[in-house]
Amino acid sequence: MTGLDGLLAHLPSWSTEPEVLARAALDRSGAVPDGLPLAVVHATSVDDVVRTVSYAAEHGVPVVPRGAGSGVSAGALAGTGTIVLDLSRLDRIVEIRPDDGIAVVEPGVITADLDRAAAEHGLRYAPDPASAAFSTIGGNIATNAGGLRCVKYGVTRDSVLALDVVTGDGRLLRTGRTTLKGVTGYDLTSLLVGSEGTLGVVVGATVKLLPLPRSTATATAYFPDARTAVEAVTGLRRAGLRPSTIEFLDHATLVAIDDAQGGDLSTRGRAFLLVQTDGYGAEEEMAAVVEALKATATLVETSGDAAAADRLLATRRQALPSIERLGRVLIEDIVVPTTRLADAVAAIEAIVRDTGVRIFTFAHAGDGNLHPIVLVEEDGPPVGDAVDALFALALDLGGTLTGEHGVGLLKRDWLAAELGETGLDLQRRIKAVFDPAGVLNPGKAITER
Amino acid sequence: MTGLDGLLAHLPSWSTEPEVLARAALDRSGAVPDGLPLAVVHATSVDDVVRTVSYAAEHGVPVVPRGAGSGVSAGALAGTGTIVLDLSRLDRIVEIRPDDGIAVVEPGVITADLDRAAAEHGLRYAPDPASAAFSTIGGNIATNAGGLRCVKYGVTRDSVLALDVVTGDGRLLRTGRTTLKGVTGYDLTSLLVGSEGTLGVVVGATVKLLPLPRSTATATAYFPDARTAVEAVTGLRRAGLRPSTIEFLDHATLVAIDDAQGGDLSTRGRAFLLVQTDGYGAEEEMAAVVEALKATATLVETSGDAAAADRLLATRRQALPSIERLGRVLIEDIVVPTTRLADAVAAIEAIVRDTGVRIFTFAHAGDGNLHPIVLVEEDGPPVGDAVDALFALALDLGGTLTGEHGVGLLKRDWLAAELGETGLDLQRRIKAVFDPAGVLNPGKAITER
Repeated sequence: MTGLDGLLAHLPSWSTEPEVLARAALDRSGAVPDGLPLAVVHATSVDDVVRTVSYAAEHGVPVVPRGAGSGVSAGALAGTGTIVLDLSRLDRIVEIRPDDGIAVVEPGVITADLDRAAAEHGLRYAPDPASAAFSTIGGNIATNAGGLRCVKYGVTRDSVLALDVVTGDGRLLRTGRTTLKGVTGYDLTSLLVGSEGTLGVVVGATVKLLPLPRSTATATAYFPDARTAVEAVTGLRRAGLRPSTIEFLDHATLVAIDDAQGGDLSTRGRAFLLVQTDGYGAEEEMAAVVEALKATATLVETSGDAAAADRLLATRRQALPSIERLGRVLIEDIVVPTTRLADAVAAIEAIVRDTGVRIFTFAHAGDGNLHPIVLVEEDGPPVGDAVDALFALALDLGGTLTGEHGVGLLKRDWLAAELGETGLDLQRRIKAVFDPAGVLNPGKAITER
Repeated sequence: MTGLDGLLAHLPSWSTEPEVLARAALDRSGAVPDGLPLAVVHATSVDDVVRTVSYAAEHGVPVVPRGAGSGVSAGALAGTGTIVLDLSRLDRIVEIRPDDGIAVVEPGVITADLDRAAAEHGLRYAPDPASAAFSTIGGNIATNAGGLRCVKYGVTRDSVLALDVVTGDGRLLRTGRTTLKGVTGYDLTSLLVGSEGTLGVVVGATVKLLPLPRSTATATAYFPDARTAVEAVTGLRRAGLRPSTIEFLDHATLVAIDDAQGGDLSTRGRAFLLVQTDGYGAEEEMAAVVEALKATATLVETSGDAAAADRLLATRRQALPSIERLGRVLIEDIVVPTTRLADAVAAIEAIVRDTGVRIFTFAHAGDGNLHPIVLVEEDGPPVGDAVDALFALALDLGGTLTGEHGVGLLKRDWLAAELGETGLDLQRRIKAVFDPAGVLNPGKAITER
């Protein structure tokens, strides 16, 4: 511990108090670590990060980078013998350059705060994960967070132009550029986005901002069953439409929201879609959306005014908290080709029937990204088989284990099945290039040999 | 040579004829190799690629992958002792899945052919490099090609979902996924796009297709000088507009086009912008574009019908061929923040004055991507200083050496200045992970130690 004391003596803010450590060891996954970290370092500068990582590399101590701790795959879970590197105090919006459409931020900036700051310039930060109100840009970058608008505007990776990172050997690396385009060198920026803190610690980012859309139109549609609802997504594509949001809620989720909020959504249909269009021509495009939805929906409503649309979006964002009221949950995040969504919801219904496990499914349906929320009931059936069946169906349908939450600790066992041995081997070697001592968030995102 | 004969005996199509080798050694850069390759292999299957690369790795023979040979940075230049691996016969569009919005292609597919095939399903392949009519998807992936529409729809990397590549040790690697979203593992797909054949040989790709826009509107504007024209790009941004194309031509380029085509563009103004909007609301957005342009343009014309718009785009695409009629050219490709475009065109005008070298500049102005075309005149001044000055101004203005053409051989000397030593070191180590024997297009894209 003399060594660690030597590090801490050079840092302005840290703690080794058990209660602080216990909190800093957890994220929103519900997973439980094997013990307490050694210390939590609250970085107040890039230099603090360099010092901490350099110490860790020299002494072989694992470092667990942490933003808001809002991850749901246990990517920020910190066990015995680790140092938690908390980046949440690096929270300055350094610069917004509206005429270039870029912002320079520190990793601890809350995503919604950046979006609000951009809005003062008539701009927005496109990625809008459901956690935007409390998750950080650094965490969003670590997991390549998605959100509701990414069906039209892309995921976090599509908005990140440049990164400042501290690599596993304590070097400061600048990747990318502040221009909107460029091909000099390999794309290390995209490689780092989604790497869950295993290749480098993000200490700064330059991100794209887009003009706020001139107008936004919103429709809600109710369907006789889940299959019909998700099949409507293909109908929208066939009509050549490009909605900015296509969200699906199944009946169990509608009931959970109603129970939590006192509404009556679940009485209007067995499945629900929320569709938005935006930009020039949003109203005209919405008219075409409504026409397409009416082919199979039992009820379609449009809401002209922005306040009503915001209420609908808020309802959608209440899906997960409403389910979480019922008990501990496992938040899954599989993706399938959109044409296989109907097969996916049918398979999930079969898993519910076969295992007796309660699953609530909502989805960023335009991307094929399903969030089956598995309820872990104390006196209910064990959920392991149901979760395995969800992963198996994702791969069976030509999909992927995780769309926007990351692998973390919780999805590691399925990694080889998706990536293949050659892919996994190359990924491990890349990890060794950036983090030769293997101290950056070890065991997360990719499995060791 | 016995070893090489042993390889060729197992391959269905190859040549060692000097005339064939001489042609296969060149690309569109105008650069001259130091001698003849050993052989050109015309791959007819993935197995041919695996065999060739495995042989090369075993015997330490450099392999130069090649599509249409339309690159302009000498990325496909093949010198003495190399094997040219020609992928142009792997040219099948394997599958178009319109309802999923994806296509599966072999690398030798001509980009415009894919776009045409997609159009039969009401879709399009968004990247549209000026070379689309003759360049291949594989080559576009190697350089991360851009084009006219990428200001709104992104570059090649943004359209590539999954790749099949043969790595430098002859292993077949599948990266990415066929879903629209996914974060399982590091993003090897983005890493490979733009790597100029130095990390792997692309033998297959799954790409995104977008709906054909419902309508497209086009305007042309003439300005009193280049500065005023490129400053109008910032005006469009301030108005919250998202054109699908913003192309700039300077006066020298307008004169070259007029000389080649017998037109009178150069009499209408000293600088020119071509702006398109598309999708729902294209006409309404174009009205706002025109209003913004009129603030500083001396003449603004809109063309309602598609045929007229196509003629305008064709004129733009004639810029480079029209300049090439005047002699050998160096095609530069720098990018600056869009707010620095005015400084960039002023600096280029100063370079012309100071060096006496003739430079024609056109630009994907919405991206800040300038193509200064440097004329190499036999009895003119030497161009070296002018080219160095272009690279220096790109970096001085916070920009990059290459926006969409790649580093190839021609921009290597400036690489460290842009990437920094840490970045370059990590890139070299990544190269060694994918290509331990160092046989894939050595010397291109990144410099060796």
